Amino acid sequence: MTPASERGPEHSIDAFHRGDFWLVQPRNSGHRAGMDALILAAAVPTSFSGRLADFGAGAGAAGLAVGSRCADARIVLVEQSQEMARYAQLTISHSGNEHLAERISIVEADVTLAGKARTAAGLADNSFDFVIMNPPFNAAIDRSTPDPLRKQAHVKNDGLFENWLRSAAAVTRPRGGLAVISRPESLAEILAALDGRFGSAQIMPIHPRPDRPAIRIVLRARLGARGALTLHPPLYLHDSTGNRLCARAEAVSNGKTSLFGD
Amino acid sequence: MTPASERGPEHSIDAFHRGDFWLVQPRNSGHRAGMDALILAAAVPTSFSGRLADFGAGAGAAGLAVGSRCADARIVLVEQSQEMARYAQLTISHSGNEHLAERISIVEADVTLAGKARTAAGLADNSFDFVIMNPPFNAAIDRSTPDPLRKQAHVKNDGLFENWLRSAAAVTRPRGGLAVISRPESLAEILAALDGRFGSAQIMPIHPRPDRPAIRIVLRARLGARGALTLHPPLYLHDSTGNRLCARAEAVSNGKTSLFGD
Repeated sequence: MTPASERGPEHSIDAFHRGDFWLVQPRNSGHRAGMDALILAAAVPTSFSGRLADFGAGAGAAGLAVGSRCADARIVLVEQSQEMARYAQLTISHSGNEHLAERISIVEADVTLAGKARTAAGLADNSFDFVIMNPPFNAAIDRSTPDPLRKQAHVKNDGLFENWLRSAAAVTRPRGGLAVISRPESLAEILAALDGRFGSAQIMPIHPRPDRPAIRIVLRARLGARGALTLHPPLYLHDSTGNRLCARAEAVSNGKTSLFGD
Repeated sequence: MTPASERGPEHSIDAFHRGDFWLVQPRNSGHRAGMDALILAAAVPTSFSGRLADFGAGAGAAGLAVGSRCADARIVLVEQSQEMARYAQLTISHSGNEHLAERISIVEADVTLAGKARTAAGLADNSFDFVIMNPPFNAAIDRSTPDPLRKQAHVKNDGLFENWLRSAAAVTRPRGGLAVISRPESLAEILAALDGRFGSAQIMPIHPRPDRPAIRIVLRARLGARGALTLHPPLYLHDSTGNRLCARAEAVSNGKTSLFGD
């Protein structure tokens, strides 16, 4: 991520993947994209081709990061907030994203819609090969924020993973992929919501440093698969000291490698 | 673990914690103790004092390992199999364990007993400060074994963690501790069984090498606590190459340090 010189008063335009794509996003409100979106995107295999939905896409960081690395991926950004969907549209229209634009589209919809309402919103059953999601969290921290747009992006609702994964299971084709990034404390809720839907789960813990607890987990799974859960060696963002990203974290965040080595 | 020179035809007597305690166990049948029991025992804080139950204790390896490191721990080995309980008795009576014997006792009982039957078997409600367990698993691998004693120790039943953790919650005092060692694929079942009982869970993945998936997880939690789950940096048993234990794994397995640093 490099701050761009071009900045408006209400939004910023930031480079990702060392300038391979750009994000137009609100400067001081909403959910600003960062490492979480880039790490989530890296969970998609580099060889992936097909149709991928980015649930809760915001301004499009994770979806565009997949599009940037996976040349045959067609990305649908699914975003409930009208304002954030507008930023996603500005992102797609930005001149620096011209090479990606024809493979990216937007569906303005609540991912927790069900049945005919979900289909009518543009999320048909069995229509995606992969779903990625970075659901809202940080409820306790952000409950105090006065910014309603940021609150909408962060506040966690009861049953959130159950609702998001039910929709993901509905729109994904059999053996299609799922990738989720979240906090470790959501692990029980995520695993419960996977049950009977997605299997052969792979978990990658993300630690800030080798001696600190995980701050995120990335979970990948396949619809209808029945293999056992695998717990992978972690990704450490930094070494024991210093603020530079480790080489692997740098490569993951810049789209140079996939998180699971495929 | 050092093989002892003293060996009978049907059992072996093996030194643990560099000779601080000894285990009498069947040589060619049943569940022979190893790293799993030692790592599980290391999850108990070194400062622990009070009454600890080792559920499914076998010949007593994990329980004695706690007793060896925690000078104020009083250990109850809970074992269903009459034959393994007999080995546990031989272990307690062994001359090399004389310094521990008065703090170790045996309850021959099925840990999945409930209500009055559980109490009558010697497992009263709220009577333990800590419960450790290494429940049977490896069903797929060991289903083929012709040895019925080994089969009894390994075959996993549906709802096993639900049943074992229900009993653990009943016999543990409020805020008392729990430690479980199992395979990563049991994570969903364990977390579901913790729900509403044990909280503030801490998970330590155990990897054979830094670049290999976890082969075990150790989970620790407290009865009635409500803190978020913590995912700790892993324990690696070996370096990337070679068969020697890493320094930390060596210290953990020899009772020189606790797994979670307390």
